[in-house]
Amino acid sequence: MKVLSVVFISLMLIACNTPQKEITDSNVTAQNHADVMKQVFDTPKYAIKSIGILVYDGVNSMDFIGPRYVFSSSGVKPQLIGLKPGKVKTANGLEFVVNTVIDSVQKLDVLVIPGGTIATIKAAQNRRLLNWIKKIDKNSIYTTSVCTGGWILGATGLLQGKKASTNWYREEEILTKFGAIPANERYTKDGKYWTSAGVTAGMDMSLAIVADNFGKNYAQAIMLDMEYDAQPPIEGGSPEKTDKKVYQMMELMYEAMITPAIDSLKIINLK
Amino acid sequence: MKVLSVVFISLMLIACNTPQKEITDSNVTAQNHADVMKQVFDTPKYAIKSIGILVYDGVNSMDFIGPRYVFSSSGVKPQLIGLKPGKVKTANGLEFVVNTVIDSVQKLDVLVIPGGTIATIKAAQNRRLLNWIKKIDKNSIYTTSVCTGGWILGATGLLQGKKASTNWYREEEILTKFGAIPANERYTKDGKYWTSAGVTAGMDMSLAIVADNFGKNYAQAIMLDMEYDAQPPIEGGSPEKTDKKVYQMMELMYEAMITPAIDSLKIINLK
Repeated sequence: MKVLSVVFISLMLIACNTPQKEITDSNVTAQNHADVMKQVFDTPKYAIKSIGILVYDGVNSMDFIGPRYVFSSSGVKPQLIGLKPGKVKTANGLEFVVNTVIDSVQKLDVLVIPGGTIATIKAAQNRRLLNWIKKIDKNSIYTTSVCTGGWILGATGLLQGKKASTNWYREEEILTKFGAIPANERYTKDGKYWTSAGVTAGMDMSLAIVADNFGKNYAQAIMLDMEYDAQPPIEGGSPEKTDKKVYQMMELMYEAMITPAIDSLKIINLK
Repeated sequence: MKVLSVVFISLMLIACNTPQKEITDSNVTAQNHADVMKQVFDTPKYAIKSIGILVYDGVNSMDFIGPRYVFSSSGVKPQLIGLKPGKVKTANGLEFVVNTVIDSVQKLDVLVIPGGTIATIKAAQNRRLLNWIKKIDKNSIYTTSVCTGGWILGATGLLQGKKASTNWYREEEILTKFGAIPANERYTKDGKYWTSAGVTAGMDMSLAIVADNFGKNYAQAIMLDMEYDAQPPIEGGSPEKTDKKVYQMMELMYEAMITPAIDSLKIINLK
């Protein structure tokens, strides 16, 4: 379901001013919900007031929808930030509407950079975008990337000397190009920089950020709301857990799709 | 990344007419990709030609984006089917564009019905929608629901006597209202009816359907593409795995949000 975003946003405001009562099943009101929340949740580490998720034509839908879903329950509505106003089309053809554009956003507490394929390589060479990311990063509390979004973040130079993770395909080689230290993890934290492996790893990273800032109970509440207790029908989801023939086929496919464009990835010299 | 949808759709067509060669790393072309795919994938059980995902204002974003993502890699582009043309807004405010509307769709091989909260209860009383679902179900190969989408499917009467699963909140009571047999599983298959638990369970169910129809290697290829090897930062995601205080708080929240509307759920007498 998705009651959490609505309830949290409204109740986080109430929560500050109400006395505590014990949790009971009876007579639930917005008022005693707020009491309940005070008993269950820690005080946040940082007061997060703005969360922005970069989007662009060709972005991977799950890369940004997963984090958007998790952060929607954090009491702040995440903004989808485009390069231009209006509609954006994902890599697999979902058309959606951005909330704002990069030129209108001067500051974010949390920045999420999702990935894609060819469009992501193009974004990793867009100086206007990369300069904007560097500007936002100056005052951010969390600067993050999901999947090949790490290629964009890497191109800014901000991952130099930092441990990082990204999509499995040519992971080590690409992170090394950006001066990052390949961690080969589901998600990696190095200071305020959080970078995740491919696609669904963005949900795990976002939950970890929620746990980091709002405490474990908060993350667990969101996990229950999204029933995030994965039970796929078969083992898989990483190169190690995938049948060798299947893995090889996927590697060949990726290669055909993004070679030679991928070879152009590098830190872009920004002024 | 998201190369799979594009590559699969184009290569599935080529695959039928090419001789097999052994998998090698060298000289990758669309042609030998097709050969590779023939070696790796089984022949599908059914030739699936149309996949439709119902969407409506107030739908849960992850409920439909997860299945859409998985099925986008199955060689058929899933259609987002609205009650009206144009934009739809999810429960957490994502605005996106539908591909078509229920009145224009007479037949689907796969139907996915995602959930939400109040909007879903309303949809479960919309006779025009319920009649459409029954019509589609007559010729479907898979009729499925995600999360509280099971409330809509249940309201058509199609789950009578069937094992089913849905979102954890008052699961047993609600499924019983629809004459279904509560299975309390991550996802449940009863004949052609597949019903999943909340939100992210829709991904597991969709992968299981892919495995059922296209074979395990196909599902594993998609899982690698979406790096679906969940590693959340803490245990959780089901009532049983959630701290009692957190669970109780969430139950109270759900109760405040959807009571008494939820009491109106029942099989709607359709003509």
